[in-house]
Amino acid sequence: MTNQAGGQLAESPALDPRRLAAARERLARELGADAILETGSGLHEFHDPFEGPGATSHQPGFAVQPASVEQVQATLRIAAEAGVHVWTSSMGRNFGYGGAAPAVNGGVVLNLRRMNRILDIDADNGCALIEPGVTFFQLYEALRAQDAPLMMSVPDLGWGSMIGNALEHGYGYNVLGDHGSSLCGLEVVMADGTLIRTGQGAIAGSELWTRHKRGFGPALDDLFKQSNFGVVTKAGYWLMPRPEEFATGTIRCEGEADIVPLVAMLRRLMLDGVLQGIPMIVGTPPEREGEDADAAGGFSMANLRQVLRPGRWNARIGLYGPAAMVAARRAILTAAVAEIPGAELELRTYPGDVAPEAVEPRDFISAGIPNMLLQDRLKGVFGPGLGHMDFSPVLPFTGEAALRAEALVREVLGKHGLIGPFGLLLTGRSMVSASMILFDATDSARVAAARAAVRELYDRAAEWGCTGYRAHVSLVDHVAGKLDFNDHALHKVYARIKDALDPAGILSPGNHGIWPGRAA
Amino acid sequence: MTNQAGGQLAESPALDPRRLAAARERLARELGADAILETGSGLHEFHDPFEGPGATSHQPGFAVQPASVEQVQATLRIAAEAGVHVWTSSMGRNFGYGGAAPAVNGGVVLNLRRMNRILDIDADNGCALIEPGVTFFQLYEALRAQDAPLMMSVPDLGWGSMIGNALEHGYGYNVLGDHGSSLCGLEVVMADGTLIRTGQGAIAGSELWTRHKRGFGPALDDLFKQSNFGVVTKAGYWLMPRPEEFATGTIRCEGEADIVPLVAMLRRLMLDGVLQGIPMIVGTPPEREGEDADAAGGFSMANLRQVLRPGRWNARIGLYGPAAMVAARRAILTAAVAEIPGAELELRTYPGDVAPEAVEPRDFISAGIPNMLLQDRLKGVFGPGLGHMDFSPVLPFTGEAALRAEALVREVLGKHGLIGPFGLLLTGRSMVSASMILFDATDSARVAAARAAVRELYDRAAEWGCTGYRAHVSLVDHVAGKLDFNDHALHKVYARIKDALDPAGILSPGNHGIWPGRAA
Repeated sequence: MTNQAGGQLAESPALDPRRLAAARERLARELGADAILETGSGLHEFHDPFEGPGATSHQPGFAVQPASVEQVQATLRIAAEAGVHVWTSSMGRNFGYGGAAPAVNGGVVLNLRRMNRILDIDADNGCALIEPGVTFFQLYEALRAQDAPLMMSVPDLGWGSMIGNALEHGYGYNVLGDHGSSLCGLEVVMADGTLIRTGQGAIAGSELWTRHKRGFGPALDDLFKQSNFGVVTKAGYWLMPRPEEFATGTIRCEGEADIVPLVAMLRRLMLDGVLQGIPMIVGTPPEREGEDADAAGGFSMANLRQVLRPGRWNARIGLYGPAAMVAARRAILTAAVAEIPGAELELRTYPGDVAPEAVEPRDFISAGIPNMLLQDRLKGVFGPGLGHMDFSPVLPFTGEAALRAEALVREVLGKHGLIGPFGLLLTGRSMVSASMILFDATDSARVAAARAAVRELYDRAAEWGCTGYRAHVSLVDHVAGKLDFNDHALHKVYARIKDALDPAGILSPGNHGIWPGRAA
Repeated sequence: MTNQAGGQLAESPALDPRRLAAARERLARELGADAILETGSGLHEFHDPFEGPGATSHQPGFAVQPASVEQVQATLRIAAEAGVHVWTSSMGRNFGYGGAAPAVNGGVVLNLRRMNRILDIDADNGCALIEPGVTFFQLYEALRAQDAPLMMSVPDLGWGSMIGNALEHGYGYNVLGDHGSSLCGLEVVMADGTLIRTGQGAIAGSELWTRHKRGFGPALDDLFKQSNFGVVTKAGYWLMPRPEEFATGTIRCEGEADIVPLVAMLRRLMLDGVLQGIPMIVGTPPEREGEDADAAGGFSMANLRQVLRPGRWNARIGLYGPAAMVAARRAILTAAVAEIPGAELELRTYPGDVAPEAVEPRDFISAGIPNMLLQDRLKGVFGPGLGHMDFSPVLPFTGEAALRAEALVREVLGKHGLIGPFGLLLTGRSMVSASMILFDATDSARVAAARAAVRELYDRAAEWGCTGYRAHVSLVDHVAGKLDFNDHALHKVYARIKDALDPAGILSPGNHGIWPGRAA
């Protein structure tokens, strides 16, 4: 097994196939045969979608899809009795991080796609109560159907679970783009089947569950994000009121060093409350002679450039609110951009209730319209076998840090014959670097190269005191191992909590480097 | 002992005085005699300041004031070896909730006032790194001394610990008025002495500790708020950049029913991002014939009216930012207020870098200037023996809920011959009702009446599915008992975590109704 403190990859313990068979049989009996997905009947969706042919690690045993809280409770009871572990996923669309694939072979994927009810939409208070199977697409359609005056924040791809994304600390780009903070009040099935509600939900019959974040005593919500301490079955989710108007577009700079004043300006405007949400910067490196000499199968910089935005640096920003406030924001932004020689600001303005057909596709994200454009464009260039794996360290909010990170990504990817776009999510007092490492997922050697490259990138980022805000399932122990303050003391606390809440160790062992049976 | 699920008050278990003496002796030896405060030498500050004469519950054994993390670790080690428990407080100025008094008699008050270093002020990123003994006053003076372009959010009284207030989910009123959310990155001594850092601080040498709220894996910060799972010894604290300008003042309404459109308007403007921070509404009930018939010792409505703001309802609001945005906010607010017949808006505008001498005292809170005006005014009217106890349930964000809560407070206080101001903190998608129950703290019978009244108020609020966001130390079990979803399931999880992190039960037993040795 793994040594989490040392950041070693987990070896997969052999799981007795008879236990797995017994669990499958009992689950089929109690939940119905259609709740079970096996090899040859749908299980492929719960592998790492980019694991490549012949993969031997992160292999699910089978998947089970409960349709209710009671069926989740039954699943955990049966798993405990059969001595198998489950690996929870909501939609399992976090493809850059391994999708629904478990850390350990033989894990029963507990997938919550069938629990997809929208239980409440509260336009007056700007919140909804949803189940983990609700996707960004689905809530958007529901809001449209009732013309609810609310606007969503969406990530690059709209097919994922809203709860799943938020529980992974995921980001969108709108005013409430920090999705982890958009959750308000969770319902959680604990490992022993006990159902709890956090925050105001701990009061039976509270109408404040989805509206006030804390209760009396410690708020446990964050404990169930990026962890394996329970199975979230419902959550409140905050939405912003549909603004009177919004303006979105880009700031484009051509000079390499322009990133320094650009980031400084954006940081200032974000802290001052002029810029809202999570601006995103994409960097397009200048062409280098021979840069595509080793490119294979179309994975060339020349092809990548087709999907990058124009300019050396291109920042996407959005302004939201009453028209008078959007105008004030725009005037301040315009003046600030003018201070950066050569920087160009381009903005398009929409009424808040604009029909999606009237929004330019490049503005879908800023408009809170879920879509699949990024994937469509990448697959259009690189073909259906495209795989990606994401490198996403948290960085200081400076242009210098951006240049350093971009140079590192280019160096390490170059060494491994890989390419990928480089981006930055501006998260207020920090940045999250977002690099998609692109590769041919039909070729196991390229999959291995990508994993090795991302692993190396995390080793190098650690030299700056930085590590990932998320990581691919194959690298979670590696990244967790970077939390080295006081001999990895934080993970010792995680281990104590894990063993207290899940003494049998049945819930997602290895998730984010948290393993059962490790308490001192 | 208490039955937490049933909401019973804790009886105080007898603590062997020999253990207490042994602990005191060892602590004096290791930390120095000046680290110990005993009866007759400073311990009175660590009683409930309003407990009244002859109090027998919530009695501290002695207080210890470590000066460093190492001394905190030594204190916990000695406490565990001596078999005594400690009750942690930062400054202990939360007087309306019992100050530094422990839930259980004989608790060693672990007071952190001597750990009062400001370790970093980062104006570029809008954050500071501080110790628990740093007060609002102290940080304000430090910001002034270096002319740091940052603005604080302060609560009504500025003498408290910034970390202590935030750990109690405390509120101020400025843009970052949700103090619990202003913390970013904690350093915590666990019960066994292990030192951890949360978030990015878990990476040795990270410069992002105070700037990015999460790390890799679950964020534990909230676990150490309103709990007894560890002793926080440092924290990052977010501050807002000093705005170019701010405008503050009041909206005044004279009609009882005006609260309904007033609250609806404020909710809309807050959700739309026009109004910032935490507006506060004070209600002044109309005079009633004979309302002061039973008033004793000056605790009359007539006297109370001297310190209330004019108008039946009086909302304090603030607008912050670049001048152009403040102007836009003001125009929208002005138009919205005009929609409420008879409502009057009064605003005063200041440059962001205004000297405190140029700010009207009534605007100190909105200007982020720590002060003691509220206490001074109340004591000026009610005398030095004034005590108060706070009733502060979380409510739905509607005028109807405000009217219901105000009527309840008046009914119950009237029954007990008590008075107090009624306020509402508007927290975004909810409100926190803030009632100070005023009484003569030199009279044990009045102390008992206040406790009985607040207890009854929580019973009645529970009928609405509402409970306190904080509570007096004598009522923590009572309020915790209101968390009744699924047979108090949340507290069963608290108990498991408590026993896992503090198996000997030495840290603040009973804090927020969390007791050691209760895990199933």
